[in-house]
Parts: sequence; structure tokens; C-alpha cells
Amino acid sequence: MDWQRLERQVAFILEIDRLKTVYRRTYLTDTSRFENSAEHSWHIAVMAMVMAEYANNPAMDLLRVLKMLLIHDLVEIDAGDTFAYDKAAREDKAEREQGAADRLFSLLPEDQAAEFRILWDEFESRKTGEAKFAAALDRLQPLLHNLYTHGKSWQEHGVRKFQVVSLNRHMAEGAAGLWTFASKWIEKAVEQGDLAE
Amino acid sequence: MDWQRLERQVAFILEIDRLKTVYRRTYLTDTSRFENSAEHSWHIAVMAMVMAEYANNPAMDLLRVLKMLLIHDLVEIDAGDTFAYDKAAREDKAEREQGAADRLFSLLPEDQAAEFRILWDEFESRKTGEAKFAAALDRLQPLLHNLYTHGKSWQEHGVRKFQVVSLNRHMAEGAAGLWTFASKWIEKAVEQGDLAE
Repeated sequence: MDWQRLERQVAFILEIDRLKTVYRRTYLTDTSRFENSAEHSWHIAVMAMVMAEYANNPAMDLLRVLKMLLIHDLVEIDAGDTFAYDKAAREDKAEREQGAADRLFSLLPEDQAAEFRILWDEFESRKTGEAKFAAALDRLQPLLHNLYTHGKSWQEHGVRKFQVVSLNRHMAEGAAGLWTFASKWIEKAVEQGDLAE
Repeated sequence: MDWQRLERQVAFILEIDRLKTVYRRTYLTDTSRFENSAEHSWHIAVMAMVMAEYANNPAMDLLRVLKMLLIHDLVEIDAGDTFAYDKAAREDKAEREQGAADRLFSLLPEDQAAEFRILWDEFESRKTGEAKFAAALDRLQPLLHNLYTHGKSWQEHGVRKFQVVSLNRHMAEGAAGLWTFASKWIEKAVEQGDLAE
């Protein structure tokens, strides 16, 4: 076995522990605290197992979807979580995250650094069926949390219906059926007063 | 689309959010708090991506490994986390967790409930190459955290070397090379005074 190779892999594994301290604006369902990006990544990976049947591309490679979901937020270790409804912060998001990807993945042995970078680029580009489905789940999970908590995070940030629709509609590119349902849930949230018109 | 089926899947997805509030005895690498079982599950899933090459069975099905790792701790939502070095609590662990599996997986549509139960049983039985490798990572991750934090959790619970070796040696069944290294790291921890002889 190659000591040096293993040491790089272990260094990467220890470094990514920091994703557990990057907090998002999404509340846990019990509203006790914000969720962090590591547990969010776990949650959407399990969602991929449960909801694979709704992918637009039934021949999708689920292993690739899981890999993308598991690593898609690693860049936040350096770049922080960018609130989906914060327009200003989203402007330099790509730049911040590219730098983070350069540093983080280069901790790994070169072949794996390249593999992880390709997966992350694929997720970000949202062109393949796998990336579109992965991105759909990445949007659906915070939406479900907001619906379940009567729009707690939406209300705290003054988010309105047109913003929710505009941000989440690309869900249809990966899972049209899920977006059909999500649209209805959003309407219902407005009716119930959980989301501002 | 089948509304009822989707509703069951969504109910399951919201229920498993509770795994984010089940805390383990393992510290984050920055020692700021204990890690929870959701983020732990994420961490070992990424480890499987990075360390697949060390599996004893090179023809292993990585997708199956990831699926097992992502759901292996769900039963803790009802059964709680059982500290690996707590002998008394481990005695009724299996019984508590079987009941938890019955309740949790039955939230899903029947076909998926069966699929998840088979995956969980496979992980628990540790007979297939995939389950042995998944179990090896489930042991390696807290070991790495203990080594990195100079045995903080070991020392707080009076854990000694023979216990660490006895609990972790099955790592060799899934990834012999990783156990070779882990054994050396354990020796070094004793030398450094991080782990009691």
C-alpha cells in the first residue's frame, strides 16, 4: 500500500468534517436550529434513493447522482453557504466556489481530485440527466422543510411566492412530476398564509 | 402519478430529519460539539467514495455500499445512539433497533420498505463484501476523529487500548489494508498518551 496516497485521502476526510459547521437558512423540521450542509447532503442523498422513480431520465445512473449530492456542497467549507434568495451574495458565488474547489479537491491524490472536480462541475452545469435530477432534490428538500414549518425561513427573510417559483422551477428539468406537486404545495402555502403572494 | 405513494415517501423524508438531532459520542474534529448521526452518515458515505480502492472485494458494488451507509443509522431515531463502548446498552441494542426498523421503514410504500429493510439487515449481518466494507468505514471514521482530537472521547469515557482493538478489528474483514494502518495509528496513540494502555 501507498502510505503517501492514504495520508492525502485521510487529510481530505478530516478536512471535510468542517462542512458540519456550515449552517444554512433552512430549519430542521422541529425548528430547533438551522440545518448544516453535511446533514443536508445526507438528507438529499437518501431522498435520491426514495425518489429515483420520479427522474425524467429513467435510465439515470443513481450512483453518479449520489456521488454528486454527497460532494456538491463541499466548496462551502471555504465559500460559505450562499442563501438561495440573496441576490447580491449569489453574484460572486461562482468565483468563490471555484477557488474553494481548487483548494479542497487538490488535497486528494491527483486521480481522485480530477474525479471529484468532474462530478462537481457536472452538478454545477446541470446539463446531464443525473445533474438535473440531483439539482431538483437539492431544491425540493428546503422547500419541503419550509412547507412543513409553515414557511418559517421564508417569512424570516421576506421571501415571496414569485421568488420561490422562480428559484425552484428548474426542478421540472430533472423531475417534472415532482415540480407538478411542488407547484401545488406552493399554492397551498400561499392560501394558508405561510408564503406571501 | 400516484398521490398516496408520494405522500408516504414525503412523510418518510420528513420523519428521517430527526436523525440530525441524534448525537453520538464522537467529537467534530474542531471539538466544538458531538457529531450527530445524519452528518456521520454523510461523512462515511464520502469516505466510501474516497476509499473504495481498499475494499477486500474489488468487485464490490459501491452503489450498494452507499445505500447501506446512508440508511444504517436511521433506526437511531427511535432507538438512540448506542455508545460503542457501553456494554450494558449494547445488550438490548438489537431488540430496540429491530422495533425502530419496523416502524420507520413501514412509513414508505411497501416495495421500498422491503428494499430498505433488506439493506439494513445486510449491513447489520456483515456477511457480504459490501456490508463488511461499509462496517469498516463506520468504525474507521470515529477512530480517525479520536486520533485527530488526541483521544478526547476515549479519555472522557475511560476507554483503553484493548477495547479499541477489540471493537475495531473487524475492519480487517472489509478492508484489511485499512486495519493494518489503523492498528499502527492506535499504537502511536498509546505512545503519545492519547489512549490508555
